[in-house]
Amino acid sequence: LTPAASFSTSSPPIERDDEIVFGFIGLGNMGFPMASNLRKQTVPLVVFDTNPETCRVARENGMVIASKPEEIITRNFFNKTKSGCSLIFTMLPGCNAIHATMNQLFQVASTDVQDVHCRRVFVDCSTVSPSTSKAWHKKWIEKGHDMLDAPVSGGVKGATDATLTFMVGSEESRGWQVAKPYLDFMGSRIVFCGGPGAGSATKLCNNLALASQMIGICEAMNLGEALGVDPIVLSDVMNTATAKCWSSEVNNPHPKVAAKRSSPAANEYKGGFGSKLMLKDLGLAVQSANEVGVSLPITSQAKELYRLIDAHGLGDKDFGVMLQFLRGKRP
Amino acid sequence: LTPAASFSTSSPPIERDDEIVFGFIGLGNMGFPMASNLRKQTVPLVVFDTNPETCRVARENGMVIASKPEEIITRNFFNKTKSGCSLIFTMLPGCNAIHATMNQLFQVASTDVQDVHCRRVFVDCSTVSPSTSKAWHKKWIEKGHDMLDAPVSGGVKGATDATLTFMVGSEESRGWQVAKPYLDFMGSRIVFCGGPGAGSATKLCNNLALASQMIGICEAMNLGEALGVDPIVLSDVMNTATAKCWSSEVNNPHPKVAAKRSSPAANEYKGGFGSKLMLKDLGLAVQSANEVGVSLPITSQAKELYRLIDAHGLGDKDFGVMLQFLRGKRP
Repeated sequence: LTPAASFSTSSPPIERDDEIVFGFIGLGNMGFPMASNLRKQTVPLVVFDTNPETCRVARENGMVIASKPEEIITRNFFNKTKSGCSLIFTMLPGCNAIHATMNQLFQVASTDVQDVHCRRVFVDCSTVSPSTSKAWHKKWIEKGHDMLDAPVSGGVKGATDATLTFMVGSEESRGWQVAKPYLDFMGSRIVFCGGPGAGSATKLCNNLALASQMIGICEAMNLGEALGVDPIVLSDVMNTATAKCWSSEVNNPHPKVAAKRSSPAANEYKGGFGSKLMLKDLGLAVQSANEVGVSLPITSQAKELYRLIDAHGLGDKDFGVMLQFLRGKRP
Repeated sequence: LTPAASFSTSSPPIERDDEIVFGFIGLGNMGFPMASNLRKQTVPLVVFDTNPETCRVARENGMVIASKPEEIITRNFFNKTKSGCSLIFTMLPGCNAIHATMNQLFQVASTDVQDVHCRRVFVDCSTVSPSTSKAWHKKWIEKGHDMLDAPVSGGVKGATDATLTFMVGSEESRGWQVAKPYLDFMGSRIVFCGGPGAGSATKLCNNLALASQMIGICEAMNLGEALGVDPIVLSDVMNTATAKCWSSEVNNPHPKVAAKRSSPAANEYKGGFGSKLMLKDLGLAVQSANEVGVSLPITSQAKELYRLIDAHGLGDKDFGVMLQFLRGKRP
């Protein structure tokens, strides 16, 4: 039995669907299309963002705007049995933002959760350290609420197309059962990874492995070309050999190879997965490894290389820009 | 047009097949099964190896034994029109061995190649630096002979099953046309990579990318498990996400994951691709990069990690043993 199989997702939510009001905090590049996909399913949706212009567009898209995060919990927007939202998503830039927002919510969240109508589920889709996730799982559970860490992969395109992958960590509890059907509105693949923090950990582990793969492919393409091997031939060989990976096949960092797929390297590394975001994820991975005493020699070096890329003003370029950086070039 | 397409492989060999005598120098773990597969096609085969016991077994398998490498060229074993072998394979441990053996052959090889019967094709299947390959291409071509650098991937199993991949570098010449049909006797995939040295370069590039992928997967598996994620769940997620690669899917270094495939990590890292061999390939890659001025920050670090593994007496273990080494453990 995998952990995923130990949960029954066919059992009905404890609360009746039409009583659920949804909250969404953080309408950035990812959060806005995610919230829009929730809204498209005609769910009642209250949102908060610090950017007034974003809020204006959200209102035009049928979302109800909270004037501060606490209203997500305290205000009764839809004349329901209970105040505020039952299922509250957060999509914020990192640990500090999550701590700040969660603290605001925590102060107003009732502890009177003997009444099921006062229980809420917090679904944090931000990419944060597993220790941040665990800390908030603990606090919410102690207060009688539920939490999921549910970071995503798939980028802005996946958020827009509702094809995100959600990596979920949660106690074996009501929260997962309540939230899962609604994650399907925003993603095409919902993976239960384990207990509190397991979603955050899984995302960081995937991305640290991805970073070393990309840099390895960049080094291979650069060396091969310098030694006179045609980049197309080299990638064709690798893609049918033991070095085959997503960074070689789907997102090859060599412009000549990328041209076949119109992937970022064919377009001056625009779009794709920003080097700055990779730097953030690698920083969280190294920090988490320090906390649990795990050695990450290659990931640590990869992190420093992406810090250099960011320092050189290339942080917004797809992380395949490493190929050019290692040549001393800019795209 | 890819370079591979620029060669006609349908044109007949210049020399009549029944005039070709085959030579094979270096009957090690790889060379012996490769030579055996040639012999199975009933080709006349003269071999040389420094190990008398190996030569005894070779003789029992119908191979003719040369008493020194030069005899591969000078002696007429089969009463043919010309002395020695027309198509001479080498499978030796590295650059030094290739230089030594090639020098011996070079001293006795005729320069009278106006006579087509004196032209020979040298096919070096060893993994050596592209500069070593290029140097011998140049010397053999100047003397009127032909050469291919044709290192392989697929390991002892591929050599035994005749399913090796050959990565070929060669001048656009008669040599490639003569040799190609016979590579098919030993491999299932013959890839033309480009000019002299391109085969060696392609192999090194594939393997350097492979090393960073393996270490990245080792780091991800170790961090994930320390953070409480089940290794099976973590590998399942990565194998359907952007971190999917051969080292995660086929040769996962975690014993619990490897058990599903009976791959080396499930058997104390026996078999597979030895760490010592990876160290050798990474050393050649870094040396080649120095020669052409290419930066390999991750590969250089990977090389040093595999040197540590070898220093700790784990050189014969599959290169996935990195997972245990990074934990401070031995399998």
